[in-house]
Amino acid sequence: MIETPYLLFLGDAPDGLAAKVAQGIKDWRPENCVGQFRMDGCNADMKLPDMTLTEARVAGAKTLVIGVANRGGKISQAWKKVLVNALEEGFDLASGLHNLLRNERDLVEVAKACGRNLHDVRIPQVEYPIASGEKRTGKRVLAVGTDCSVGKMYTTLALDAAMRERGMKSTFRATGQTGILITGEGVPLDAVIADFMAGSIEWLTPDNDPDHWDVIEGQGSLYHASFSGVSLALIHGGAPDALILCHEPTRRHMRGLPGYGLPSLEEVRDTALAMARIVNPECQAVGVSINTQHMSDAEARAYLEEVEARMGLPAVDPYRHGADKLAAALAAL
Amino acid sequence: MIETPYLLFLGDAPDGLAAKVAQGIKDWRPENCVGQFRMDGCNADMKLPDMTLTEARVAGAKTLVIGVANRGGKISQAWKKVLVNALEEGFDLASGLHNLLRNERDLVEVAKACGRNLHDVRIPQVEYPIASGEKRTGKRVLAVGTDCSVGKMYTTLALDAAMRERGMKSTFRATGQTGILITGEGVPLDAVIADFMAGSIEWLTPDNDPDHWDVIEGQGSLYHASFSGVSLALIHGGAPDALILCHEPTRRHMRGLPGYGLPSLEEVRDTALAMARIVNPECQAVGVSINTQHMSDAEARAYLEEVEARMGLPAVDPYRHGADKLAAALAAL
Repeated sequence: MIETPYLLFLGDAPDGLAAKVAQGIKDWRPENCVGQFRMDGCNADMKLPDMTLTEARVAGAKTLVIGVANRGGKISQAWKKVLVNALEEGFDLASGLHNLLRNERDLVEVAKACGRNLHDVRIPQVEYPIASGEKRTGKRVLAVGTDCSVGKMYTTLALDAAMRERGMKSTFRATGQTGILITGEGVPLDAVIADFMAGSIEWLTPDNDPDHWDVIEGQGSLYHASFSGVSLALIHGGAPDALILCHEPTRRHMRGLPGYGLPSLEEVRDTALAMARIVNPECQAVGVSINTQHMSDAEARAYLEEVEARMGLPAVDPYRHGADKLAAALAAL
Repeated sequence: MIETPYLLFLGDAPDGLAAKVAQGIKDWRPENCVGQFRMDGCNADMKLPDMTLTEARVAGAKTLVIGVANRGGKISQAWKKVLVNALEEGFDLASGLHNLLRNERDLVEVAKACGRNLHDVRIPQVEYPIASGEKRTGKRVLAVGTDCSVGKMYTTLALDAAMRERGMKSTFRATGQTGILITGEGVPLDAVIADFMAGSIEWLTPDNDPDHWDVIEGQGSLYHASFSGVSLALIHGGAPDALILCHEPTRRHMRGLPGYGLPSLEEVRDTALAMARIVNPECQAVGVSINTQHMSDAEARAYLEEVEARMGLPAVDPYRHGADKLAAALAAL
């Protein structure tokens, strides 16, 4: 668990896209952000107060989060001076980069000397159990996709926000590094050892109040040849009561797999429900989330109407229209 | 890759069951075994020549394989003297135990001093790629089960033997630690990092002659809540042309999951085929392997006949009757 609140480190990000981890934290957990730290040449801006390390500590920041990704996922030498100073000022560091903080000898030495923590959220910090398959109290909803990177994290964050807006009891459960940095906790599922995948998701979504919902971030797709096993472990470990189907209609082939077309929403619904019902016979598909970023407003509206009619389920683009329709469907379940 | 041939270390095994790894090696790769090493009190016997370490080295043995499991998967202190002597005599050591050779400081020091290797086959030794989903040349057959531990390894080893007996080109591909010790190579799939599971199986079953078959050991079950993700990665990474369905008819519930009944052979056939056809649209179910160890001869015969009639597929217990019927089905494909 990463200590909040954060100072967001934007480094020398050439543009806003390079700082999309910081943007996610700012968008979804603004209360976790006391400010941003930008170096010379930084062109990203989270519209947070620019702060020095000392100012941010005074304002209560506990952790400096690397909210920027450069090419190759490297920890840039240009950043090192700031990171070392941050440790000396009393910050923990958190990163979702491929290259690990713990493999940078200078950071390890300073962190040790100062008694600070280095959080590499790509690496599991917990010895997860093997899944028991036993029923837990409380309810769970999981996003399942026709493909990778169709908006499952966005959908579940928006759904969680909409449910809380309605006064429902809801917790977003992160299963990837960006989600973990946003909320400060979760399971980096793609880095978990095969035998413990489903168990890690049971651990992430334990017994809870009967009217509480865990809103579980999806990963991969049952139809994605590279990552389908991760998706199935998530379905069996999460034991969802409800599925949200996620899709990006303009995509021509599965992400990273040029020879593979996308499955239909109906195929994903039927396959995911059949698999989910092995552990939770009551599981229902309750809504559809469409990523319409490559469509005009009119195209998006027409597409969503067509999907609603075809599937008999509420369909939204949570980015354009919010996720309240999906929250309402869960409330009605 | 573990150097063969082996000297099989039976230690102080209280009975034959405790030495079932050694039994598997002896049964399936007798040519890999020059002899056995037994300590005082050992009640297991592979009917191999009893040898001292020196005798086995003279006979050509390269690796001492720990063919015995004691309670807790520990490396017993009683074994240590033999293991250290073996390293000094020029043996590598290989083990599938939960406790790792590499975590025993004395063994590590002696191995280093003597220039020998410690093989812990539970731990991947390779940086596997992410699966590409691309078509490979050659053919592949995979065992899929209604449950864990229904005889998938035995089935694929017997099938590989039957295919070679017929003059077919066949390679058994191990995906678990016993299979890896038997053949000296393979992928310990249950210990692979989630994102690389399917890629590890692509790596294990590369391009080959058009008439060559990889016979891939199955793991888990699509219907087993704890391990289904591993099974699906195996289907998508293996991209099988043919499936053998494996079942143990007297089992009352899924292994380790008292609340879960077993799926039918038809359910496993339909689900596994649907998933396999995402990567290989030509995939067929070609036969059924039934573990009849808890049935009489007459019961087994009646059950196999019933399954053949019901499924329209050849059904055998490879332990009782060999796997030639399954090999014939593959030859006819």
